[in-house]
Amino acid sequence: MMEAVPGALGTSASFALRLGQIVFSSASLLFMCLDVQFYSYTSFSYLVTVMGLVTPWSVSLALVDAYSVFVKCLPRQPRVLLVIIVGDWALSFLSLGAACSTASVTSLLADYESSYCPSKICSRYQLSAAMAFMSWFLSFASTLFNLWLLPSL
Amino acid sequence: MMEAVPGALGTSASFALRLGQIVFSSASLLFMCLDVQFYSYTSFSYLVTVMGLVTPWSVSLALVDAYSVFVKCLPRQPRVLLVIIVGDWALSFLSLGAACSTASVTSLLADYESSYCPSKICSRYQLSAAMAFMSWFLSFASTLFNLWLLPSL
Repeated sequence: MMEAVPGALGTSASFALRLGQIVFSSASLLFMCLDVQFYSYTSFSYLVTVMGLVTPWSVSLALVDAYSVFVKCLPRQPRVLLVIIVGDWALSFLSLGAACSTASVTSLLADYESSYCPSKICSRYQLSAAMAFMSWFLSFASTLFNLWLLPSL
Repeated sequence: MMEAVPGALGTSASFALRLGQIVFSSASLLFMCLDVQFYSYTSFSYLVTVMGLVTPWSVSLALVDAYSVFVKCLPRQPRVLLVIIVGDWALSFLSLGAACSTASVTSLLADYESSYCPSKICSRYQLSAAMAFMSWFLSFASTLFNLWLLPSL
């Protein structure tokens, strides 16, 4: 019963999903932040804000999963699960929005303002947007798996 | 039983949701298309493409709902409902992405290239993005209501 839904809270698949989210969101954050001028564009600041929320959220849930897998299986309460589902859901939408904004602004900068966007920095923006898309996808997968589990509790 | 889930396929609430989607998506399309130079920006072309998909999809489902409400209650098959849920779900994500891209590109244009974006045209871009956000919200509401209905079939 507890392992019936792979990917739900407290399983090893969920731990793997969270690890992926941590990797992709922090990569997106680093590609954007190690550059100097990200705060001069609204979309890039938004991406940094959202990824700065996703990373600690994923880290804390990965810790819960790791504890549940390796130490002691934690009881799952519907109320806690609901909070996690809503959080994942909101963060996945924010990630999608941030990724789309970053991608479109980057393509606009690359086309029209080559003085603002040397090719080295532009490719970093693109990588950051791609990482944010991956992070969105994994967050959304977590939401769906937990939502699947919810009725059985 | 048939009216147990307001907003699911074939109810009057669903008809209202579809009407809202038609209004917002076609408004977004018109605000963008009646301008001449939308095809010179990738994000704006993308918004036009997505809204050009959302409008006929919503119109056809609104016709199904109207038939079901006013003429004869249609039987609901799980397979058809699944296709509708997946379609709504995909279109709602595409709408969200298009709305975010348009909004961010518009804000960038308004800040940096005032020659490309006179304030009259810029406010039309913003209106178009806002309409696309409303259309996303209604599509997503339809998805959730239908998803709620699915297990009971």
